[in-house]
Amino acid sequence: MKESSRNWKQLKMIYEDYAIFTPGPVKMSEEILQVGAEQTPYFRNSEFSDVTFACEKGLLDMVNAPDGSKVIFLTASGTAGMEAAIMNLLNENDNALVVNGGGFGARFMGICATHAIPHTNFKVANTNLADIESLAPKENYTALVVNAHETSVGHLYDLDAMGDYAEKNDMLFIVDAISMLVTDPLDMQKSNIDVVIASSQKGLALPPGLTMVILSPKALDKLQDINSVYFDFKDYLTNGERGQSPYTPAVTIMLQLHARLEQIKNRGGIGQSIASAKEVADYFRKSIKALPLKEYTPYMPNAMTTLTPTDGKSAMEIVNALETGYKVMVCPNGGVERDVVFRVSHMGEMTKEYTDILIDALHDYYDVARPS
Amino acid sequence: MKESSRNWKQLKMIYEDYAIFTPGPVKMSEEILQVGAEQTPYFRNSEFSDVTFACEKGLLDMVNAPDGSKVIFLTASGTAGMEAAIMNLLNENDNALVVNGGGFGARFMGICATHAIPHTNFKVANTNLADIESLAPKENYTALVVNAHETSVGHLYDLDAMGDYAEKNDMLFIVDAISMLVTDPLDMQKSNIDVVIASSQKGLALPPGLTMVILSPKALDKLQDINSVYFDFKDYLTNGERGQSPYTPAVTIMLQLHARLEQIKNRGGIGQSIASAKEVADYFRKSIKALPLKEYTPYMPNAMTTLTPTDGKSAMEIVNALETGYKVMVCPNGGVERDVVFRVSHMGEMTKEYTDILIDALHDYYDVARPS
Repeated sequence: MKESSRNWKQLKMIYEDYAIFTPGPVKMSEEILQVGAEQTPYFRNSEFSDVTFACEKGLLDMVNAPDGSKVIFLTASGTAGMEAAIMNLLNENDNALVVNGGGFGARFMGICATHAIPHTNFKVANTNLADIESLAPKENYTALVVNAHETSVGHLYDLDAMGDYAEKNDMLFIVDAISMLVTDPLDMQKSNIDVVIASSQKGLALPPGLTMVILSPKALDKLQDINSVYFDFKDYLTNGERGQSPYTPAVTIMLQLHARLEQIKNRGGIGQSIASAKEVADYFRKSIKALPLKEYTPYMPNAMTTLTPTDGKSAMEIVNALETGYKVMVCPNGGVERDVVFRVSHMGEMTKEYTDILIDALHDYYDVARPS
Repeated sequence: MKESSRNWKQLKMIYEDYAIFTPGPVKMSEEILQVGAEQTPYFRNSEFSDVTFACEKGLLDMVNAPDGSKVIFLTASGTAGMEAAIMNLLNENDNALVVNGGGFGARFMGICATHAIPHTNFKVANTNLADIESLAPKENYTALVVNAHETSVGHLYDLDAMGDYAEKNDMLFIVDAISMLVTDPLDMQKSNIDVVIASSQKGLALPPGLTMVILSPKALDKLQDINSVYFDFKDYLTNGERGQSPYTPAVTIMLQLHARLEQIKNRGGIGQSIASAKEVADYFRKSIKALPLKEYTPYMPNAMTTLTPTDGKSAMEIVNALETGYKVMVCPNGGVERDVVFRVSHMGEMTKEYTDILIDALHDYYDVARPS
């Protein structure tokens, strides 16, 4: 065991006042953090059931879910939500068209392979799939699976076009909205979406550990018996009728979600949150025009900006310089993209003033005067 | 959506200053709660890896794990740890002897059935299995599976006797220690334990959402490829080599675990924590001797006291009276035991003084003067 003083120093370092622009965990509001300092209450009672019901209602309203939709609250990371959705909804008689535009698309591919779901690797690049009709392979598919925001590269797909295509071809439309909910528009009814997967530590700006799967009536009809105890959605739905869950929920994060949904409402609703994220993202992109950094994709979400150095610098070097020189955390990529791109999140408790910290740091790093 | 004022009232009610004696969530210390109010830091870096390594080391020391043991950190509830352990370690060639002394034993049975693991329902009552040698069915088994503390009724098994039996018969010994770690002794080497499952919201006194599976070298050798992405232990071990996890960890709870392990050490070590829990449990049991309440089992852990009314009163009625009349939360049982037993936890930030709140409430409720 390391020395106590050493451990304390590690914690201090972790909590030091860095400006946070990583795409999860993201900066949280003081109001939400204060809930994290409360004793976790007992939850097998009607008070906590009411909290669960309010969270469900708030989420369904936020995504304009069709009447009769339900929310599964999983104590787990987002990947568990992706896997559980596939396990509960698809089987060997399905044929899934999996959009694969990066690391998270590849993860959906791996999940389908692990569970022996017939699937096609719909490899895409340089398109937001507004033209999915002409691009998609001409096969019969039963499901369309996509990460609405492919977070590994910061690429947002056109959910309306995809939903039209899914409806026309009678496909179940499964959308991982983990890194775009709250910052970018998502409308289940308008885009014919049957399943939405969301997670606590992105746009919802809560600590990680809670994942939500929103199911339309069409998805609910398709739920099957599965060989899993922890991911059995039917069990969650039965318990959900009384506002409870089969296993200990992430009580504290549920209470933070409850407070956060109130906060979003009090700040003018989900439309206002999306507009605010767009304003901050636009401001950031405009403010760094003078720097040798290029936007990696023309299809960026409000949630994130992905940048490529145009002067031969390594992206990783910039990430490190921002952290050590300016106490600003942005997000590197791994593998082959390590030197090619870095990512700047606009999710969470973001303002133009807060984003100025990063904008100023980048100008100072490049020794370029910031245009006034 | 309910009115904002209504929701706020719900939250206020939940957080009202109840004395908490429920077996998870349990009362947390101020020090741990304060970590919950910190911004969740970025975690794909060496600072967080160091935290993970320190947590692993601290847990391995706490249970006296054999050299070469590893810890899997799952973002999930305890049931996921139970299921993942079975999935990763047993298959159709195994034959598991599952101790079933209540709701959690039944859960292990269900998990084995779901994953088609041959198993025997070792139904037990009125024994702590010190005599497992004579009680166990005379079949060839490959694994012994037990909830060390069957929390549904507050019954603690004799891990030493079970471990001797498991070793003699060359069985893998899988122990769910969720509701007894930190309050009751557990020694992997002394009791020949191969797998320990632990969870954040019990004796560790952290918010729910983090589950740990500790694997001995013998268990590590037996790990198999499984049809699961989220529960694939091999993937966790590979990432664990650099102090990371394949999916977003419960970062905040990990940091709270780090602080909690330090706290346990600073308070005199795990032996001191166990002694303190025993002192509080003994004090409580001694202090209610004058009341018409009977201990439900002679094999109670330090973690919890399970009580049965001897005057014909309904256990549920007592639970409700304590909550509404005294702002004291104890834990009811469900189903047929609803009127028969209620449970009092001694896990978490417990002292004699704090326990006096409950002792005094019970005496007042029964209108019996507390002996001085």
